[in-house]
Amino acid sequence: MGRWKPGARDRLREAALSLYLERGFEQTMVADVAERAGVTARTFFRYFADKREVLFDDSSVLEEKSLAALDGLPATTSALDAVAAVLDTVAQMVGDDRELARKRQTVIMANADLRERELIKLTSLSAALADKLRQRGVGDIEASLAAETSVAVFRVAFSRWVTAPENHDLRDLLRETLDRLRTLTADR
Amino acid sequence: MGRWKPGARDRLREAALSLYLERGFEQTMVADVAERAGVTARTFFRYFADKREVLFDDSSVLEEKSLAALDGLPATTSALDAVAAVLDTVAQMVGDDRELARKRQTVIMANADLRERELIKLTSLSAALADKLRQRGVGDIEASLAAETSVAVFRVAFSRWVTAPENHDLRDLLRETLDRLRTLTADR
Repeated sequence: MGRWKPGARDRLREAALSLYLERGFEQTMVADVAERAGVTARTFFRYFADKREVLFDDSSVLEEKSLAALDGLPATTSALDAVAAVLDTVAQMVGDDRELARKRQTVIMANADLRERELIKLTSLSAALADKLRQRGVGDIEASLAAETSVAVFRVAFSRWVTAPENHDLRDLLRETLDRLRTLTADR
Repeated sequence: MGRWKPGARDRLREAALSLYLERGFEQTMVADVAERAGVTARTFFRYFADKREVLFDDSSVLEEKSLAALDGLPATTSALDAVAAVLDTVAQMVGDDRELARKRQTVIMANADLRERELIKLTSLSAALADKLRQRGVGDIEASLAAETSVAVFRVAFSRWVTAPENHDLRDLLRETLDRLRTLTADR
């Protein structure tokens, strides 16, 4: 009981998403998730603070890796190339499990509190990116705009990725969406 | 008692903002706001559903007017010119009372629930703008990007407007910020 089992985190995530979809997020208890995953509730709490965190525990890693991606760039990199590098990192982090991403998105969209949490997460990511760009010497306004642009492109491309009938590569979609933004803003 | 008084809405808003700043949003009661404005609580509720709505009651008007601005444009207007038109309308709606805007911003930033409400409001505005652009024949992705861009430019310019030591014109700031975004995305 309570011993570490390989893959328990992934099994818990999978079980939680399935139950949130079947019964609704509000109606699912931690005990149900643990049971479905074949572990105890105590084991659940070893991995996640609560049932909401199953959906958002990757956020801090995502932010950390996005900031690290900026650290890895030459000082001469333009703000827009920095945005592109962040988007590549995000694609890598999210991975290619579109079914999992789609399930997560469906659960979040069905619940107002979860939608708010997701918005806050992206706003926090944007603020952190802007700060990091300023530290890199990007101007104040440009840093904020580049950060907001990253999030805007991510939101649009991610939504395309999970809703499209055919399976695209997320990284390609992110790059293409950024290109479309460039075309859009040039068209005047 | 309860008779209509000219300017009661504005007095209530002014009283509410002052009290939220002095005592904090949570600590202020509707009765306090009404008393400071020299009206009854009943009068307060004639204008606002609750103490939070004093801060957000303009949102639906803002959304309505932004959408109406799109309706007024020729069918040939580019998505980016549509964004510019929406931003002009927003500047007109917000008006030039920077002190009021700054107070409202300070109150909202000090409270997590209010920050969430503000985020949700802007996300809802973005979704409505994207829908309207699609109805105008703008492509699906471009419509989403243009709408997200409007909100991003608004957020950055508005924050500059309320925090800058000198008093700029909000419309000028919005236009300049959009131009900066164009430069940023062209720079690669």
